Amino acid sequence: MNNPTACLLVIGNEVLSGRTQDANINFLAKGLGAIGIPLREVRVIPDVPKTIIDTLNEVRAKFDHVFTTGGIGPTHDDITSECVAQAFGVPWEPHPEAWARMAAHYAKTAEGPEAFNTARQRMATMPRGATLIDNAISIAPGFTIGNVHVMAGVPRIMQAMFATLAPTLAGGPPIVSRAVHATGTGEGKIASGLEQIQNRYPELDLGSYPYYRAEGQGVAIVAKGNDASRCEQAIAEVTALFVSLGASPIAGEPPH
Amino acid sequence: MNNPTACLLVIGNEVLSGRTQDANINFLAKGLGAIGIPLREVRVIPDVPKTIIDTLNEVRAKFDHVFTTGGIGPTHDDITSECVAQAFGVPWEPHPEAWARMAAHYAKTAEGPEAFNTARQRMATMPRGATLIDNAISIAPGFTIGNVHVMAGVPRIMQAMFATLAPTLAGGPPIVSRAVHATGTGEGKIASGLEQIQNRYPELDLGSYPYYRAEGQGVAIVAKGNDASRCEQAIAEVTALFVSLGASPIAGEPPH
Repeated sequence: MNNPTACLLVIGNEVLSGRTQDANINFLAKGLGAIGIPLREVRVIPDVPKTIIDTLNEVRAKFDHVFTTGGIGPTHDDITSECVAQAFGVPWEPHPEAWARMAAHYAKTAEGPEAFNTARQRMATMPRGATLIDNAISIAPGFTIGNVHVMAGVPRIMQAMFATLAPTLAGGPPIVSRAVHATGTGEGKIASGLEQIQNRYPELDLGSYPYYRAEGQGVAIVAKGNDASRCEQAIAEVTALFVSLGASPIAGEPPH
Repeated sequence: MNNPTACLLVIGNEVLSGRTQDANINFLAKGLGAIGIPLREVRVIPDVPKTIIDTLNEVRAKFDHVFTTGGIGPTHDDITSECVAQAFGVPWEPHPEAWARMAAHYAKTAEGPEAFNTARQRMATMPRGATLIDNAISIAPGFTIGNVHVMAGVPRIMQAMFATLAPTLAGGPPIVSRAVHATGTGEGKIASGLEQIQNRYPELDLGSYPYYRAEGQGVAIVAKGNDASRCEQAIAEVTALFVSLGASPIAGEPPH
């Protein structure tokens, strides 16, 4: 696979403390695979400015695209946007379009619960040069600067932002996969034959995943790559391997 | 908080491709917080030797403990154990105790589906100096070397290994949390007052998390730290803040 690469930064103490079960990694892993920009690394990092800035500068040099989730709300722990500005060495300043939209959305008073107050103004303040990522749910946009795409942490808002963003990104061919599974067998039996198949399909990624169900345990083999017919050929060989070992393979992933 | 720190490496293409929804991050985040070794970073990385070795050497120097999940099974894509040996610069060799146990468990033949074959022997091969992490579910153990704890990727096996491992680790005071939430209000209203409370409790981590429910949207505030009474004081101030803004706060996290 020679696709452009992606890294995801999940920014937020709440995932590291266990308060929040992340739902964004899996969504973006699938969504980025589908547009041919496979996810190659994820980092979950805390709301600490130096950590965010250093991590961002490391990964934006290393991957073609960096996606961030979290930390762009109005509260004191939402520091992603100003950290991105620092990482790029540009001013963090009112974004004219975001500012105008949010000023129009909120009440025209400096005080009161519906005012465009300083907390909400933070959500219209961005690194100079940022372009907006709109979403259909919230008035506050995400933004792109360079190869960094800054999105909300709330899954439904992040997903709405990704829906806007994805069509603008130039991906490689989509990553496709084919699978086969067999109950009543295990990785230890299939490992040797499977490695030989992997060696015959070096351009594919052949994964082996044990599963445990009420009706028995087994193993699922998944072939991933850019060429569906090659994936199908590899999985046909795995299917024959299962049969040769006395197992009863079934096409596809095991039911959940 | 002056607790020892933890980093988690989730090793496996299946999480990065979206094939598998990770369940280990959240479990270990909670479990490590409870024993006073808070999780400070997570990295999800692919089954690529150089990536595993380089990442491991970076994070084992940076954090007090490193936990890994995934890649210790018998198949060709299970390369964590030999990568750990390379990262530590020690031989990867049969572990006498693990080898003896697994040889006794499997059939005494070199061939056949139940043999202690070369694939299964890989699971008894470890970096020199590793100590075993037993588990109640599978015959194949995890291991500790230096400050690195190598565990299975299958959640129930990882959890069984962590149950063995956790009591052996010297943690700091447990991380405790208190929360309050209010429906019908938002982060933009509470942000300014919340920041002032955070400033009065610099040793706590005050997080603000919007939520969206059928019955309405709102915001939950969580105080975390080592001192439960300080968390309670901070949350009492947040509760008063909610009331001053006309909201009706309820103790604890919102129902899921």
